[in-house]
Amino acid sequence: MKYFLLATAVSLFLTENLLAQTPRTNPDRLHSNLMTLASFGKNAQGGSDRVAYSTHDVEARKFIKDLMQKAGLEISVDFAGNIIGKKSGKNPSMKPISFGSHIDEVPNGGDYDGPVGSLGAIEVIHTLSENRIVTDHPLEVIIFTNEEGGVVGSRAIVGALSEEALQVKSNAGVTQAEGIKLLGGDPSRISEMKRNPGDVAAFLELHIEQGGNLYNEKLDIGVVEGIVAIEWWEFTFKGKANHAGTTPMNMRKDPMLPAAKLVLAVNEIVTSYEGRQVGTVGKIQAFPGAGNVIPGEVKVNVEIRDLSSEKIWKIYEDLEQRAKEVASEGGIELAIKQIEVASKPALADPMIREIIKNQAEKMGLSTKSLPSGAGHDAQEMARIAPMGMIFIPSKDGISHAPEEFSSKEDIANGANVLLQTILELDKRLK
Amino acid sequence: MKYFLLATAVSLFLTENLLAQTPRTNPDRLHSNLMTLASFGKNAQGGSDRVAYSTHDVEARKFIKDLMQKAGLEISVDFAGNIIGKKSGKNPSMKPISFGSHIDEVPNGGDYDGPVGSLGAIEVIHTLSENRIVTDHPLEVIIFTNEEGGVVGSRAIVGALSEEALQVKSNAGVTQAEGIKLLGGDPSRISEMKRNPGDVAAFLELHIEQGGNLYNEKLDIGVVEGIVAIEWWEFTFKGKANHAGTTPMNMRKDPMLPAAKLVLAVNEIVTSYEGRQVGTVGKIQAFPGAGNVIPGEVKVNVEIRDLSSEKIWKIYEDLEQRAKEVASEGGIELAIKQIEVASKPALADPMIREIIKNQAEKMGLSTKSLPSGAGHDAQEMARIAPMGMIFIPSKDGISHAPEEFSSKEDIANGANVLLQTILELDKRLK
Repeated sequence: MKYFLLATAVSLFLTENLLAQTPRTNPDRLHSNLMTLASFGKNAQGGSDRVAYSTHDVEARKFIKDLMQKAGLEISVDFAGNIIGKKSGKNPSMKPISFGSHIDEVPNGGDYDGPVGSLGAIEVIHTLSENRIVTDHPLEVIIFTNEEGGVVGSRAIVGALSEEALQVKSNAGVTQAEGIKLLGGDPSRISEMKRNPGDVAAFLELHIEQGGNLYNEKLDIGVVEGIVAIEWWEFTFKGKANHAGTTPMNMRKDPMLPAAKLVLAVNEIVTSYEGRQVGTVGKIQAFPGAGNVIPGEVKVNVEIRDLSSEKIWKIYEDLEQRAKEVASEGGIELAIKQIEVASKPALADPMIREIIKNQAEKMGLSTKSLPSGAGHDAQEMARIAPMGMIFIPSKDGISHAPEEFSSKEDIANGANVLLQTILELDKRLK
Repeated sequence: MKYFLLATAVSLFLTENLLAQTPRTNPDRLHSNLMTLASFGKNAQGGSDRVAYSTHDVEARKFIKDLMQKAGLEISVDFAGNIIGKKSGKNPSMKPISFGSHIDEVPNGGDYDGPVGSLGAIEVIHTLSENRIVTDHPLEVIIFTNEEGGVVGSRAIVGALSEEALQVKSNAGVTQAEGIKLLGGDPSRISEMKRNPGDVAAFLELHIEQGGNLYNEKLDIGVVEGIVAIEWWEFTFKGKANHAGTTPMNMRKDPMLPAAKLVLAVNEIVTSYEGRQVGTVGKIQAFPGAGNVIPGEVKVNVEIRDLSSEKIWKIYEDLEQRAKEVASEGGIELAIKQIEVASKPALADPMIREIIKNQAEKMGLSTKSLPSGAGHDAQEMARIAPMGMIFIPSKDGISHAPEEFSSKEDIANGANVLLQTILELDKRLK
């Protein structure tokens, strides 16, 4: 009898351990759900017009809620329109482990961007429910509101969504406030929903890479080090607009020249530092902008991204110095305006990074640690909780376009790593 | 009786000679007409909206025709809508000495550009009529159609207005053909009006400088050496549009960099040659042109002007070479498209230049020889006749803007130099 009990205990112990390690998400179900979601807002070019608050978005969210209920989640919609799905844990006093992503797209976007992480999160719950696994922590799936138009839902959760932001027009033509109502939220009560540090045990997001590192190097899983800070400036060089035919070369005050020098300086200075920071001039405009008029003004948009805000500002100082020099050489006025994009760096939690990496490797998947150069809801959630992100390869590094593609296998890998990371975190966060 | 007759003859001879040298235009009348013309199409910003074919243009032309008739001209409108005013000479077998300008303006233009030469020409006739001076040559005042929108009227006269050009939309919203009808022309018969070399004895145009040479150096009269040729090219650098956050610096194909290098090369190469050639980048566009996207394409508009087409093309060859180099350094594709502006150089006739200079100096006016960096109807008329242009100062070199200004005195000087040049040409062209 004694032996029998011991054997049973060993057997139960083994079974539990085995179950905790072996549950696998269902790749076919996940992929089929992804394709169904893609049908909401598919346009003639094969792209997705499921911008936030559009009828496509509203309809798709009904589909998502249904799916979440079937997966075993208890559904609610918060004041910001986020869909919240809850699954109780064994220990009700614990804070939830939260995970999720978004289903809205940029105009003419793709089918994988936010959907992979959204449906991946639901699939994880479905798998746990099927396997009758109950974690210690409550689990929470969040399908965020309007990620593409300013991480609106996640900002609302962390109390960082301003009154002004609510009045901004969205791509669907309605304001954020109007759009949130369409999703079942109540913009007037958003301040009530603010969560504080400690309210969430951890936040995880699965996403496609939106860059070519994993795809090009044929790697399976990206372990995100953090989401870079983004800073934007508009450099305005002011000279004197004049007739291109009648103004001698030595009598010109042509702001195009220092503007061109700044473009080159951005590349030169950004690459002169060690590391993975990036700097881009994506927009340059001459005014009045006619071929036969020396411009009176040229505006150059400079963006710098890095995991370290300190490094960004060091690079900016170099640029500012250079811009002043090249402007004064030509007798040109310079005005620099910082553009509010308010994207602070968000570092991933070191323990979560380690878990993601280990769990992936246990499954025989190759990994790479890398920063996320793009913004995500996870960057907002990082203000109140330890955060981790899992990347999967995206073909040719393309995102936000109809050509966006991730393979069924890569998507399944991502969902499985998400599942194992949650289970491991559930043990480690006590 | 004999002595008396002789005395009378001598006296008549002296009087004629004196009259031929001393007649002066009426500055007040000229200025008052200029201000009346300015009232047609004056906008709230103080600028002129008298674009060709607009109701302002149509109404102003009625005023102009009335003025021409009062000055002693016989009026007609040719198939291109040009207003032609004729004053017979003593010798009907001689070809006319023609002169004039245009009264249409760029959108939100000024009051002096073409009007000074148009009303100056009419004032010259008025002065001759008042002084009962009859030249040997017939005289002809031409108020051209739509100068600002492609020297349409003068091109029609010299047979250089294409069928395609007639279908181009003008700033007034109608096509050139429709607009010409509004002015009383008949676009279907334009080919019938072509004049050939020899049909016109000489062509003269008085105009404001549209540059700061005379104004800055406090000089009275510009003796135009010729009207520069203008060539335009669009350089397109093609790279790969990509996410500004997720694409490492060393994996970019950023066309902004060679574009910036080309901007600097235009300045460097144009100024490396001796002479008064000018080169301008007035327009640069990045596509898609968002601050957070590495551009896929950057277009740079390059314009070069000089009195010598050969020099322009030599400079272009240097630029093309440089553009190829900077593109290939960055793995960027380059396409160069010449843009049809079809502005050939038009040299002023040396004898006419000398007469303008001498007549101005006889009146005690200071002069400077200079090229016209801007295009004029005179450049088209130069295809069929010896051509000369007289410039007067324009405040701060400003033109094509509400701030355009020339003083009453400078305008009168210009009209008097035009008058004396016509009288001297009348003697010299036998």
